[in-house]
Amino acid sequence: MTASPAGLPHHDGSPLYVSTQEPVLGEAVSVRLRVPRGFAPLRVVRVRSNPDREPSYADARIVHETPEAVWWQAEVVVENPVHGYRWLLEDREANTWWLTSKGISTVETRDIDDFRLVTFAAPPAWGREQIMYQVFPDRFARSAAADDREAPAWAWPASWGDPVIHQGPGTGEQFYGGDLDGVREHLDHLVDLGVTLLYLTPVFPARSNHRYDALSFDHVDPLLGGDEALVRLVEAAHERGIRVIGDLTTNHSGDAHEWFRASFENPGALESGFYLWLDGAQSDYVSWLGFRSLPKFNWNSPELRARFIEGPDSVVARFLKPPFSFDGWRIDVANMTGRYREEDLNEEVRRTIRRTMVEANPDTLLVGESTNDASGGDFTGDAWHGAMTYANFTRPLWNWLSVPGSPAGGGLGMTLGRTTDYSGLDFYAAHREFAAAFPWRTRLHTMNALDTHDTPRFTTSAREGVVPVAVGLAMTMPGIPVVWAGDEFGLTAADGEQARTPMPWDAAGEYVDEVALYRRLIALKRSHPALNGGGIRWLHVSEEAVAFVREGASECVLVVAARSAGEVDLAGELPDDAEPLEGAAVWGAGLVHVDGPAFLAWRLPGVTLPAW
Amino acid sequence: MTASPAGLPHHDGSPLYVSTQEPVLGEAVSVRLRVPRGFAPLRVVRVRSNPDREPSYADARIVHETPEAVWWQAEVVVENPVHGYRWLLEDREANTWWLTSKGISTVETRDIDDFRLVTFAAPPAWGREQIMYQVFPDRFARSAAADDREAPAWAWPASWGDPVIHQGPGTGEQFYGGDLDGVREHLDHLVDLGVTLLYLTPVFPARSNHRYDALSFDHVDPLLGGDEALVRLVEAAHERGIRVIGDLTTNHSGDAHEWFRASFENPGALESGFYLWLDGAQSDYVSWLGFRSLPKFNWNSPELRARFIEGPDSVVARFLKPPFSFDGWRIDVANMTGRYREEDLNEEVRRTIRRTMVEANPDTLLVGESTNDASGGDFTGDAWHGAMTYANFTRPLWNWLSVPGSPAGGGLGMTLGRTTDYSGLDFYAAHREFAAAFPWRTRLHTMNALDTHDTPRFTTSAREGVVPVAVGLAMTMPGIPVVWAGDEFGLTAADGEQARTPMPWDAAGEYVDEVALYRRLIALKRSHPALNGGGIRWLHVSEEAVAFVREGASECVLVVAARSAGEVDLAGELPDDAEPLEGAAVWGAGLVHVDGPAFLAWRLPGVTLPAW
Repeated sequence: MTASPAGLPHHDGSPLYVSTQEPVLGEAVSVRLRVPRGFAPLRVVRVRSNPDREPSYADARIVHETPEAVWWQAEVVVENPVHGYRWLLEDREANTWWLTSKGISTVETRDIDDFRLVTFAAPPAWGREQIMYQVFPDRFARSAAADDREAPAWAWPASWGDPVIHQGPGTGEQFYGGDLDGVREHLDHLVDLGVTLLYLTPVFPARSNHRYDALSFDHVDPLLGGDEALVRLVEAAHERGIRVIGDLTTNHSGDAHEWFRASFENPGALESGFYLWLDGAQSDYVSWLGFRSLPKFNWNSPELRARFIEGPDSVVARFLKPPFSFDGWRIDVANMTGRYREEDLNEEVRRTIRRTMVEANPDTLLVGESTNDASGGDFTGDAWHGAMTYANFTRPLWNWLSVPGSPAGGGLGMTLGRTTDYSGLDFYAAHREFAAAFPWRTRLHTMNALDTHDTPRFTTSAREGVVPVAVGLAMTMPGIPVVWAGDEFGLTAADGEQARTPMPWDAAGEYVDEVALYRRLIALKRSHPALNGGGIRWLHVSEEAVAFVREGASECVLVVAARSAGEVDLAGELPDDAEPLEGAAVWGAGLVHVDGPAFLAWRLPGVTLPAW
Repeated sequence: MTASPAGLPHHDGSPLYVSTQEPVLGEAVSVRLRVPRGFAPLRVVRVRSNPDREPSYADARIVHETPEAVWWQAEVVVENPVHGYRWLLEDREANTWWLTSKGISTVETRDIDDFRLVTFAAPPAWGREQIMYQVFPDRFARSAAADDREAPAWAWPASWGDPVIHQGPGTGEQFYGGDLDGVREHLDHLVDLGVTLLYLTPVFPARSNHRYDALSFDHVDPLLGGDEALVRLVEAAHERGIRVIGDLTTNHSGDAHEWFRASFENPGALESGFYLWLDGAQSDYVSWLGFRSLPKFNWNSPELRARFIEGPDSVVARFLKPPFSFDGWRIDVANMTGRYREEDLNEEVRRTIRRTMVEANPDTLLVGESTNDASGGDFTGDAWHGAMTYANFTRPLWNWLSVPGSPAGGGLGMTLGRTTDYSGLDFYAAHREFAAAFPWRTRLHTMNALDTHDTPRFTTSAREGVVPVAVGLAMTMPGIPVVWAGDEFGLTAADGEQARTPMPWDAAGEYVDEVALYRRLIALKRSHPALNGGGIRWLHVSEEAVAFVREGASECVLVVAARSAGEVDLAGELPDDAEPLEGAAVWGAGLVHVDGPAFLAWRLPGVTLPAW
């Protein structure tokens, strides 16, 4: 079975299709539709908007014609901060189609699938051009200074070469003693790869190796080198053109946190309002998934907001300003933050965080973790610029490219803890299902991760030869590609805990090919504007392959990702003189022959359209 | 092409499948899944909940087996007021399926498609058992007293037999002078039909025949007989076992409204805060779709809330209490109410309305108009019990059962003003698409209208012989069936304005067959508990026919709706000894033969399951 989206009308939120990426309320925005010549000749094209949830319509007209396609255009006045719209097409025989973010349909579709114009403040200009590298500080590298530090009482000290304890006692306590100067000392590795954005999991003091159980947000863990080491790291990164973002737990703190210690069993304490107590004595409390070491915050507290997320003295602001100068935040469990029983303060909390960030430094990035369906309204762009989520990319990718039935539990969120057997059509369907509700800007800032510190490593159960296919898709689909430290060495891990592997620096020489793959595909992403904000038009979807073109005015990049040998029909859209960028393949007349798993890319001319 | 949902696992929110219809926060609710024997034998069945937007899982176990099906059960603790859940199935070959409110899928699906347990206060017990009859007072009937009333200055007086002006000047002003005593005098017609709920479009004084431009909410229009006539009507209806609901415009008033008159061009007025002024002089203002005669309310005003929707002296409360004693409200343009640019007060307004109603009389019904997609979050059951919407029933029905390309403009919301050509599969897909996001209780209280005062009449462009099919579906699918006054006479109308036909009482004798059809199908609905809250399990979906069974413990009702002659395969689920309830057909071995459009129903035994 093959789907040929190449023959279908197309629209996305990219600059070729929308006249502005930063619309404001009341602005008339022009939107365009590409209708391939092979599609039924259309008699009527309209845009349906849905201001205040009541439909209104605008007629489109033809503004451009090429041998391949007819381009229609309509004007839409932006009437709400999230202004939904969709296309309605009718041919000469009165057949009708809806075109929404999910694709084309002959049956009416829901508002949630509308395309979206968003008037909230835009993400920083650099956000869409990043290669993110994720570091888990305890496991990345030790500086010499680490040897002088005494392991804390809770820790189970380990030597760098020890196997990772990944289940049972010691999992959270095994302590390798990586530190921030260790990260700094390896920044050239990031430069060599082409990384532009470093994401550090928490650096606040805690009582675990992962530090998601902060005991203070006032300073950097001395075990990591303290505040000074963070300052040194960020400065060194910035000197190399690498930005750095931190990781905040806004859902909970650790039970050793100074705020929790002050209020636990102490109803008179100022910090009593910070947590969700279940009894008057303040001895029982709500915690993250019932783990008593992680008491959940009560965001009704103005004092908590002032200390943590609101205003120039808050934690959120302080670490964005010098001397720390973080370039943004990744927010842990953003999906649960502020939600408990009948209360939902999530919108208030996330908007407050972003407002505080803008006041401290507007040129910063804010990414919210929401590992499952992130399309339910949190990611319209009012605060989070993008999602750290596994539903729209990571899980579809695993299900398509892993050996079916592979272990894929824990944070990856595969419900039965194993991969299932997706075809390329399933991969495409699942991707569109979860990406459709994101505005275009959110898609560009959502993380394309093969894996993270919470999941098994992709390589572990990948089908033979598909790692380049997976890395290539992460680099070329809309979103911020993520390199989880160690992926570039081809490391394996059966679960998220085991994935927190100490980096095998001493054996780096064994991973030359793996590193070269990453270096090459990162360079591909970085050197092509079409891959950093260009639209995505799908050309081919079948059991074994998918293909799309990222489109821009200056150039396009055509991508083929194949799981196994075969022929990929690109509906004539790959010219014989296209410039190969990645992978070796035989092609002609729009057909590509691959003799095994393959990731291929070509450069095509840009799309020339009349000025807006 | 035929889909055979009969062979698929099934769950819905009905009493067979969920242990309580009125869960409370923290309660453990049992949920059940029916897996037909023909489906792959399952190794694992789990329920995924999504508390605070983070998945959690409960294992199911087999609790019942019959020759036809295996029943699984799991326990779910309700953790949020709207607690989403879904089923996850795995067979012995590690194939997996999601089962959500939209149906079964091998690809992961979005949270919006989850089934839902809802802890908001339940609708009144009688809500799910109603047959609604919609009356537009100017066009229903004149009492003798109407002859003594002088037509107002704005009116274009008409005689009862005059054709309806349905476009251009006079459309809103043509005045037939129907009144509430006229309605009262015809209540026996409603009793004869079997109607149980009378829905009156607005009865407040205005300057149009439709009265959606109220000039006061303090009293009933004297042209309708004033307050006393309403009191007489409701009393007489109640005596006959018929409840009555009114119609409120919470989005806007008329520009002749006393509140608007007081504040227009009068910045010092107390009512200045009631509207959305566009200039300091209060001469320009926001209005409904730009119609200056309908200024939009500003729900930030506490004084507006107090007068209109909040507390015992508000309009909302006053008409629910004696002497008026309305049994509920239908809210006009509920979807737009409180929404304007960056402001969205809709949730606050609708919850305030419902709270006020509960204080005045909790045994009342609240239905919100939302003619398009009503699945976007307004209809979780926090206020509106159900929707007056066309997306999940009316439009799919028109597209399947009308002559393709028929005029279907105006309020029906067909985007191109014409029906398209749906197969039965499209009808089913569109229905599920829009019904899926409703909790089960919302589905039971959502209006199944063939047409209303805002749409053309269905009969106008119905395919030959399908009116019984359409009426039958309205009566047997989950929801409150609507008889728009005149439908029972088989009236036609090309648009919503023309549909406001004066009732042809003098010619009632010509419509004996049409009335008999309604009387019979209404009786079918009223006499079978399975049709008033029973689950819906689809058995057959094809181009030309759909079939489902409404299921309960005491009985089931199997329904076949066919657009044309053919054979309907019920997968063995229609026993040879089933009791025919409606329509004549030949059947055997689960196959039904129809020789043209047909609406058929049989009674089957109830489903016996272990106690909860």
